[in-house]
Amino acid sequence: MFDHVAIIGLGLQGGSIGLAIRAYLPGVRTSGYDISAANRDVARERCLVDRVCDTGEEAVRDADLVILCVPPCAMGTVAEGLRDAIPADALVSDVGSSKKSVADALAKALPDHLVIPAHPVAGTENSGPQAGFASLFRNRWCIVTPPEKTDLLKLTELVAFWEALGATVEIMDAEHHDLVLAVTSHLPHLIAYTIVGTASDLEEVTRGEVIKYSAGGFRDFTRIAASDPTMWRDVFISNKDAVLTMLQRFTEDLTALQRAIRVEDGEALYKHFERTRAIRRSIIEEGQDDARPDFGRADHDGDA
Amino acid sequence: MFDHVAIIGLGLQGGSIGLAIRAYLPGVRTSGYDISAANRDVARERCLVDRVCDTGEEAVRDADLVILCVPPCAMGTVAEGLRDAIPADALVSDVGSSKKSVADALAKALPDHLVIPAHPVAGTENSGPQAGFASLFRNRWCIVTPPEKTDLLKLTELVAFWEALGATVEIMDAEHHDLVLAVTSHLPHLIAYTIVGTASDLEEVTRGEVIKYSAGGFRDFTRIAASDPTMWRDVFISNKDAVLTMLQRFTEDLTALQRAIRVEDGEALYKHFERTRAIRRSIIEEGQDDARPDFGRADHDGDA
Repeated sequence: MFDHVAIIGLGLQGGSIGLAIRAYLPGVRTSGYDISAANRDVARERCLVDRVCDTGEEAVRDADLVILCVPPCAMGTVAEGLRDAIPADALVSDVGSSKKSVADALAKALPDHLVIPAHPVAGTENSGPQAGFASLFRNRWCIVTPPEKTDLLKLTELVAFWEALGATVEIMDAEHHDLVLAVTSHLPHLIAYTIVGTASDLEEVTRGEVIKYSAGGFRDFTRIAASDPTMWRDVFISNKDAVLTMLQRFTEDLTALQRAIRVEDGEALYKHFERTRAIRRSIIEEGQDDARPDFGRADHDGDA
Repeated sequence: MFDHVAIIGLGLQGGSIGLAIRAYLPGVRTSGYDISAANRDVARERCLVDRVCDTGEEAVRDADLVILCVPPCAMGTVAEGLRDAIPADALVSDVGSSKKSVADALAKALPDHLVIPAHPVAGTENSGPQAGFASLFRNRWCIVTPPEKTDLLKLTELVAFWEALGATVEIMDAEHHDLVLAVTSHLPHLIAYTIVGTASDLEEVTRGEVIKYSAGGFRDFTRIAASDPTMWRDVFISNKDAVLTMLQRFTEDLTALQRAIRVEDGEALYKHFERTRAIRRSIIEEGQDDARPDFGRADHDGDA
């Protein structure tokens, strides 16, 4: 296993990794760096890592695992800046939400290092050094996308590392990862960002009314539309092809439902709406969501 | 206040009204009817109302408030069928999610009765006689849309009734209600139904993968896409004009974001994504959602 993990970028992901290592891998030393001095201060206060450094070079010194936790489009530049400082035998990994373009950027920036990209499918709508918590990865998936030829021993160590943090690891091809995540994560975020924007621009309905009556469904979308704007800008750009492909399918399906509403084709609507229930059932059966109505927030809202 | 409330349709809404009356208005008698014999059996087992009747006529006899809790497009037919049985001085109301077309249908079906439509903005993804619970309306809005000329005393009594069940009442014009709900509830449901359908039809990504990695955002959409298909078919048809108007705006906004992704206009994406955070903040400040990350389900998922 690793002795010293360096974390570059101390936001929700980086901070949670630091806290998770302290909680579940107490023998492992951690160091970290964030480009923002204010974030480094918060990281020190919250003790996200053992040692918060004032440069990335200092943070990666003597590390045997370096995890880049910066927005996808920054990965290449950050890696290139640290190339000479990262120990030659260190394993480099990341937490980027898109994998093919990040893997290519890292391979190009670090031609002489071993790079094995990864993506923990875990997060909340909160971001920054205040947002992390040790159990973020527990009972969540972590998708590892090793290049074709890789060091199998290091790969095993990286898998064991994520498992120690509570995740279940899947090995996947980077391109396939990008398609899967485009539909399960990127497209939902794009749709949520869109509808929240649409609702706030209306003339006929005030923003106050939108907020007031949001329990009818809208509030579910606002949660993911509150996610980190920098990261999401980068996700859409770095996974552009898969996102645009999925968006095209979505638009076709939406147009078909729009037409069914216009011509009042109740049967087509009913058939579609009945089909979608089954997916919810499977998600709950596989433990991927809370089965309680309203995600359990009813318990919080009222006194049921 | 009312002495005897008759509830027609004993699903999530009707059942919850019955249970809420027993809990918060213990002096009031309740009777109820559901077109499905199986639902009536469940209603009897769960004691959703004091007396479950085998006909609607029997249920409304001697009632001074009749609440129709059937799908929007069935309102007119159901009301017409009960016209001769509903006492002449009874107030008739409903819980339909669209108001203009329902109000028109009820006014036409019951020309000699006093009708004051209402819409409790409360629900869960569950439906049927098993789904109701007494606190469904607590801390939720109930929008009442009286016709221009109405009996103000009866209106006051209806408002007091919903307040006794825990709701906060707003009086609104039916057309405006339909626009507000089109954006806060109907469009979100349509989008959610669409994306869940799109995801289940892909060839490149299996349904198993969609379910497995749904925590990346997709699972939030599956909750509302599991709502009652009959009711939602009727909502879209009965509020067609407002839904199509809002959908048009949404599509324009989505196309603009799609273009920004295609041309990699990071600045446009960032600007949009930053703006949408503010709405989430307001929803939480106004107590319309749970402030905990992931709606608080993180507490359930892991051990944070």
